[in-house]
Amino acid sequence: MLTVKDLGEHQLLAKLAPYCANIIGDDAALLDFPPDQQLVVTTDVLAENVHFSDRTTPALSVGWRAVTANLSDLAAMGAVPLGITVGLSLRGETKVDWIETVYQGMKQCLDQYSTAIIGGDITRSKTNTISITALGKVTPNQTILRHGAKPQDLILITGKHGLSKAGLELLLNPHLYPSVSLDTKTKLISAHQYPQPRLDVIQQLQQLAEFNQPLGGMDSSDGLADAIMQICRFSGVGAVIDVAKIPIPSDLITLTDSATALEWCLYGGEDFELVLCLKPSLALKLLDKLPSQAVVIGEITKTNSIQLINNSPDNPKLLLTQTKTYQHF
Amino acid sequence: MLTVKDLGEHQLLAKLAPYCANIIGDDAALLDFPPDQQLVVTTDVLAENVHFSDRTTPALSVGWRAVTANLSDLAAMGAVPLGITVGLSLRGETKVDWIETVYQGMKQCLDQYSTAIIGGDITRSKTNTISITALGKVTPNQTILRHGAKPQDLILITGKHGLSKAGLELLLNPHLYPSVSLDTKTKLISAHQYPQPRLDVIQQLQQLAEFNQPLGGMDSSDGLADAIMQICRFSGVGAVIDVAKIPIPSDLITLTDSATALEWCLYGGEDFELVLCLKPSLALKLLDKLPSQAVVIGEITKTNSIQLINNSPDNPKLLLTQTKTYQHF
Repeated sequence: MLTVKDLGEHQLLAKLAPYCANIIGDDAALLDFPPDQQLVVTTDVLAENVHFSDRTTPALSVGWRAVTANLSDLAAMGAVPLGITVGLSLRGETKVDWIETVYQGMKQCLDQYSTAIIGGDITRSKTNTISITALGKVTPNQTILRHGAKPQDLILITGKHGLSKAGLELLLNPHLYPSVSLDTKTKLISAHQYPQPRLDVIQQLQQLAEFNQPLGGMDSSDGLADAIMQICRFSGVGAVIDVAKIPIPSDLITLTDSATALEWCLYGGEDFELVLCLKPSLALKLLDKLPSQAVVIGEITKTNSIQLINNSPDNPKLLLTQTKTYQHF
Repeated sequence: MLTVKDLGEHQLLAKLAPYCANIIGDDAALLDFPPDQQLVVTTDVLAENVHFSDRTTPALSVGWRAVTANLSDLAAMGAVPLGITVGLSLRGETKVDWIETVYQGMKQCLDQYSTAIIGGDITRSKTNTISITALGKVTPNQTILRHGAKPQDLILITGKHGLSKAGLELLLNPHLYPSVSLDTKTKLISAHQYPQPRLDVIQQLQQLAEFNQPLGGMDSSDGLADAIMQICRFSGVGAVIDVAKIPIPSDLITLTDSATALEWCLYGGEDFELVLCLKPSLALKLLDKLPSQAVVIGEITKTNSIQLINNSPDNPKLLLTQTKTYQHF
């Protein structure tokens, strides 16, 4: 099978061109930028055998997930995407078919949001890595910021958590789950391989007249617990989370006990939902516009502790802990 | 010596924070963007043992060169920098001191142009790579484009070529040049390790009233010959280059014969000068403003061949050839 080394740089670029916006070959891309908007920029690096591997991530999913991670960072700021650049380093033995399918995955995810690959660079290296920079625009008084949460804000999550982690579990340890149905398996693995950035939520939010000043919030890419902790830390506030309000997806219950399912929801990561801190009136208006998976799970408080409360006697009062969240080294 | 693995992600980020613009910890950076300007975006990936190695590139130079390559791409479009993002993948055994010095080199180069690192991501990997995305702004009628050259334009180069290649030669094969003076050695190695992007030329150009429509041009990062060929190809034109006008730096003549020196000038690469195609009146005005190293070396023609002419009998008429230019695979 043809490798990138066989093909050479110029032919490889020609192969990948159809997946990119019309690039005229200049040293940089030129973009019109609307007045009265701020520019939003985010960079994510994905490395082979760290963020993706043949075992869990087909090429199409590698591209899709790389784009989702970046578009989700834009959504986390309240921004609308303008385009992405892709910095690739590739082993010479990488199959042309693999990298072409990665670009297909990127394009498929980008097409949903009418955005595109507008530039990039390819180099050879000893390992495959993908560094994506996403560009977006945001109206200054409609930004979402980690330090923007205020006491009495309601904490709204835009969807279910734990699904991506459960999908990864099924991919890594299929022998531990012999009786899981094909339907559940497909759903969970798809949640892991093809997650959606919640740019639809940003679109809904922007239509609400009450959304006229920056919000507290971020995405839950590193886990729901991590998002809550980051927002509280940067905003200098605390939170009370009602555990009973956190939706535990029914598919998780078919796989594992409820304590583990809750743990996956809190610490699993890569669900790419948004965690928003909203005035009660705005929270209710937004809930009206979103699918039923969006729920309020708690409230921002003046204290600096984060309490998980639960009426059930077998779940005593807990504090969230950073040690379980993802560390990149 | 402390490695990045010893330190962990959070502490590593804290160590690198002083080299970056004030980042408040959000998922993305927020930037004001001036009205009536276009956004310019460029991405470059540098990989260990491909673009840099301990043998030729001290850590400070790795950072400096990575920034220069990107700022030069902005200059190549006529743009002024707004900031860069840095996507790093690092081996766990990489020394903290090395990566800190790389950031120091990036900051030192950026500081000259009042710009900064505004975001990024770090991940672990099997090899060290640095992916930089640079953002800039440009007035739409003051862009520089590869397809903008027109017949009768003069071809102006903003400085000397071949110096970076000569510096690399001295680093790779010092035994071949036993009699080179310390002064020459220092100068050439510095040209290789600490090249300057020609943003100063852009500043001078923007002050000329005659610069009121897009120009043909690009930078000479992949070599002077490559730049001329790319511009001609994208503009659908040819060129006549007077070899006698190409300045051969005197330091090169102390190292090698004149044919090799010319080859280094044409094909060496990484001098990061600009190759501009200008109406004669604009070319003369720009020459007035630039140091004496800037010269006109030829003219754009209607034909689609690129001729090197030379009055000297030992240098017959030559055509530029793509096979000698740099291929990334």
